[in-house]
Amino acid sequence: MSEPRRILEMNAFDNRQGGAGPVARRLDNLGAASVLFYRAPIEMVSAQGAWMVAVDGTRYLDFYNNVPSVGHSHPEVVAAVSRQIATLNTHTRYLVAGVDTYLEALKARLPSALSNVVLTCSGSEANDLAMRVARQVSGAGGFVVTETAYHGNTALVTEASPSALKRTAPPAHVVTVPAPGREAYGDDIAGGFARAIRAAMAELDARGIGTAALLADSIFSSDGIFADPPGFLRPAVEAVQAAGGLYIADEVQPGFARTGSAFWGYARHGVAPDIVTMGKPMGNGFPMAGMAARPEHLAAFCEDTGYFNTFGGNPVACAAGLAVLRVIEEEGLQDNAQRVGARLKSDLEEIAARAPRVAAVRGAGLFLGVDLCAPDAPGTPDAAFTVQVIDAMRDAGVLIGAAGRYGATLKLRPPLCLSQAEADRFTEAFAGAVLP
Amino acid sequence: MSEPRRILEMNAFDNRQGGAGPVARRLDNLGAASVLFYRAPIEMVSAQGAWMVAVDGTRYLDFYNNVPSVGHSHPEVVAAVSRQIATLNTHTRYLVAGVDTYLEALKARLPSALSNVVLTCSGSEANDLAMRVARQVSGAGGFVVTETAYHGNTALVTEASPSALKRTAPPAHVVTVPAPGREAYGDDIAGGFARAIRAAMAELDARGIGTAALLADSIFSSDGIFADPPGFLRPAVEAVQAAGGLYIADEVQPGFARTGSAFWGYARHGVAPDIVTMGKPMGNGFPMAGMAARPEHLAAFCEDTGYFNTFGGNPVACAAGLAVLRVIEEEGLQDNAQRVGARLKSDLEEIAARAPRVAAVRGAGLFLGVDLCAPDAPGTPDAAFTVQVIDAMRDAGVLIGAAGRYGATLKLRPPLCLSQAEADRFTEAFAGAVLP
Repeated sequence: MSEPRRILEMNAFDNRQGGAGPVARRLDNLGAASVLFYRAPIEMVSAQGAWMVAVDGTRYLDFYNNVPSVGHSHPEVVAAVSRQIATLNTHTRYLVAGVDTYLEALKARLPSALSNVVLTCSGSEANDLAMRVARQVSGAGGFVVTETAYHGNTALVTEASPSALKRTAPPAHVVTVPAPGREAYGDDIAGGFARAIRAAMAELDARGIGTAALLADSIFSSDGIFADPPGFLRPAVEAVQAAGGLYIADEVQPGFARTGSAFWGYARHGVAPDIVTMGKPMGNGFPMAGMAARPEHLAAFCEDTGYFNTFGGNPVACAAGLAVLRVIEEEGLQDNAQRVGARLKSDLEEIAARAPRVAAVRGAGLFLGVDLCAPDAPGTPDAAFTVQVIDAMRDAGVLIGAAGRYGATLKLRPPLCLSQAEADRFTEAFAGAVLP
Repeated sequence: MSEPRRILEMNAFDNRQGGAGPVARRLDNLGAASVLFYRAPIEMVSAQGAWMVAVDGTRYLDFYNNVPSVGHSHPEVVAAVSRQIATLNTHTRYLVAGVDTYLEALKARLPSALSNVVLTCSGSEANDLAMRVARQVSGAGGFVVTETAYHGNTALVTEASPSALKRTAPPAHVVTVPAPGREAYGDDIAGGFARAIRAAMAELDARGIGTAALLADSIFSSDGIFADPPGFLRPAVEAVQAAGGLYIADEVQPGFARTGSAFWGYARHGVAPDIVTMGKPMGNGFPMAGMAARPEHLAAFCEDTGYFNTFGGNPVACAAGLAVLRVIEEEGLQDNAQRVGARLKSDLEEIAARAPRVAAVRGAGLFLGVDLCAPDAPGTPDAAFTVQVIDAMRDAGVLIGAAGRYGATLKLRPPLCLSQAEADRFTEAFAGAVLP
């Protein structure tokens, strides 16, 4: 078995050789921080619903971007932002009724115990804050994360994001465990994962650091998407909480109805988070994120540290966020994610049964992972073939990317408004790319 | 002399006693993270130009919020955001022409050596990244900041923001120096400040940590605003650079033409930053920020760490940012800041000469600080009187706040479109509040 590949994004190229035109222009502006999709990157000009339009007129079905979750350029979000930004955009040091209206609508979706919400600009800021709250409350300094986890881009959060560390191991206060899949834990994922978490906590204790929190994305997106069996997370979470650590549910990716059966991904596992962080789809692309916590936990943190977020909780973001919640409800997007996602998964499983290079299909709702492998060798992930499939899908007009320890898991995250016809279009393109 | 008061915001109350209505609602939602202006907070409903309108119809002249810098609800920014969000909002893994158009317009304002820009969501994220780049490039771990500095809210940046640390001193890798004013350095601010910086670097060396960077806001906003004499920063910056450290110019507050004589605050001092960070006014309230750096510095950082910012550099933010740059240019806002600011400063100095409780007026352009003191005791800052003045100004329809080591410096940051009549309105209200 090969070494874990630690790389933030599988379909990412630095395009250093990419000569002229818009790619050269981008490299000149962003430098080494430029990471474009595809060896021949796509220039986009517009997007609506599940579709993006390139400068050459090509229309692409977006099966990858989990930010515009209610659909690209959704008219209700557009209208809400346009109206509010023309009226008032200020910070939370003044009262603005719409801000509290949004916070109350959001809290109605959250466990009642987590009744304080700090709004931030990004999921990174939310996780950075959550990690500090967990340290304050637990009195311990360490974090347990999965081995290919990604939780954000600040200094503190990057340390707990092994997939962002290109050449180094996480620092001493971060201990990793294998992702909750059969490869590491066989048939007993719940038991095996809990044992691994307990061992990680023991290691943090042995290092004299202790465990502040288990920080986990309940769909384990960057690890390669691990959703089943429902409930497998519970023994691990309970072990952490019993030891005085917190469970930070990083819902930046699975949250806001994507996993179909519930509004939050952690609900699939019947666990009670101490902190919930959220981001990406929260404003359908308007920069906003947040952390929900117990009042006493937030108060403990604020005793030592003054926290203020200039843009966090501005009324324009709250208008966008409220429109997103309303659209999810009005358009029945959670049900749609559940229904279209289930059918998509079973269609992909049918293809897998016929395709010797498709090893497994996993996931929940409209958050699916498909493992690609060497021919007739399900245990041998094939990252090179995965890139081929991604390119073939692009040629077929479908945008998709990959994740996971081996870079060989296609990550499917279309907008939640995906129609059955659009799902079928994906399935057809996928069959064309993987069937012999 | 009293101990330094370390508090993030002087006109900030937690309003824990604030019974009913919208304040109670806010506290129920934000909990300990709620920090509202005024003991009786104001509920706002709209804002245009330099004016905000409360729910009771009261109109307030906004002399404090440095985010809506080209004016609240500026129609060009509103139109740019409304148009772009209806068309395309995605991340920088696809090419979008407007993103590069913006980056190029921004870079035209920056030193040519700093030709790579990473767009983020907040100034905090920009400074968090800048500090890590500085560590990577310098090979050292320490930072020198002023003693009441504020640079942002992430874990790493909070450690370098003494004003956010309520009960603790900064960690070992952060050494503070007194703000560059006469109180600490007498008549030789440039020489004294440079000596203090050298001593701080020696202390970091003695601790075995070394100096990664001097992280300084060139207007020293949270320290109480220190702008003169122009050039005083230069010996300090050169000392840091000579020793292999970087100078991170935190332009989140002074940037984008506010200081009048130049587009960036550091230009007032004739120094060459290694990194420039920016934020607040960049999108006139649309959440966006950035870090400009040398390509080789950014490349060194990216070799070890994968950095991606989901919302950073989205085309809607870039549309807002481009509109801000255009409005500053078209409306001559830098000249306006210079001209109206200079007149405002001299009017305030005239009042100070007659008002025994006004000890000093400092600043540049439309970023001014006014020290308030005990009666006829210019050396005795008076925070309680400052709160009285803030409340009296509010009663006169003017929004203002305070900063500084003693919480006794009024901080004036009106929109850059401020008219002379609006400036006069402030001066009149201020005279009423401070003249005997």
